[in-house]
Amino acid sequence: MELTEEIIGKLKHSLATGIPAVARTGIEVLELDRGYVKMRMPFEPNINHVQIMYAGSLFTLAELPGGAIFATSFDSTRFYPIVRDMSIRFRRPAKTDVTVEVRLDEKEAAEIAARAERDGKADYEWECQLKDTTGEVVAITKNIYQLRRIGS
Amino acid sequence: MELTEEIIGKLKHSLATGIPAVARTGIEVLELDRGYVKMRMPFEPNINHVQIMYAGSLFTLAELPGGAIFATSFDSTRFYPIVRDMSIRFRRPAKTDVTVEVRLDEKEAAEIAARAERDGKADYEWECQLKDTTGEVVAITKNIYQLRRIGS
Repeated sequence: MELTEEIIGKLKHSLATGIPAVARTGIEVLELDRGYVKMRMPFEPNINHVQIMYAGSLFTLAELPGGAIFATSFDSTRFYPIVRDMSIRFRRPAKTDVTVEVRLDEKEAAEIAARAERDGKADYEWECQLKDTTGEVVAITKNIYQLRRIGS
Repeated sequence: MELTEEIIGKLKHSLATGIPAVARTGIEVLELDRGYVKMRMPFEPNINHVQIMYAGSLFTLAELPGGAIFATSFDSTRFYPIVRDMSIRFRRPAKTDVTVEVRLDEKEAAEIAARAERDGKADYEWECQLKDTTGEVVAITKNIYQLRRIGS
């Protein structure tokens, strides 16, 4: 699939709003390209009872790139993704907007797709860092997804 | 602190509504007592783009008992809790409301409080299972919290 400006625009919109529980957080997709996404969780709608960002909103920011990387790296007519495991370590309280960036190398994506093509499914994983506006890492996550071949 | 009916009612309300991002999920506190909580995440407001419960809503259901167990087990004039680490394994798609139950033994709570009193902080953890309305386990989580002595 060619990622035209128009397709990128539509994907950004559907990532941020396609799941009502995600849309309610006010998350924004800042940048999107093949195998790359940058997202931002706004502070104000996600403040908890002690004036820091709610843990569940940080989880959403860490998890949602899975959908973005899938949509720009894999053929959605042949595969679908599931999230298998996530772990999140909270390092510091987040007191500003928080961003995350995830990249999946094109060669690695091709290798994952080949495994899923052959075996019906293929696990893949990454670590990511959530950063506040000063660049401080507020949380570190490990995400394990599985690519599944449709009809397998 | 004596947990009167009135205090229990107020705690249930503040757990479900005190954090706006939590309130938006529609989560309910079904039962609350010293060292015990049962919560329910409703399906409908938390459906994702493929008609199963959104992963982030399951995370919230798994994480929020931490606040309930804190509020009923520890002295909030001496201590406060933080969530340090959480891992969540998604076993099956959730297609109904989902519930969770967490218990913290009174003796164990006293031991945690004594450690936090002595050292300024004390880690504690539990595993929990999220179940759909047929009793199927849809996710398993491990939660690590830390009790901190106020002023330490």
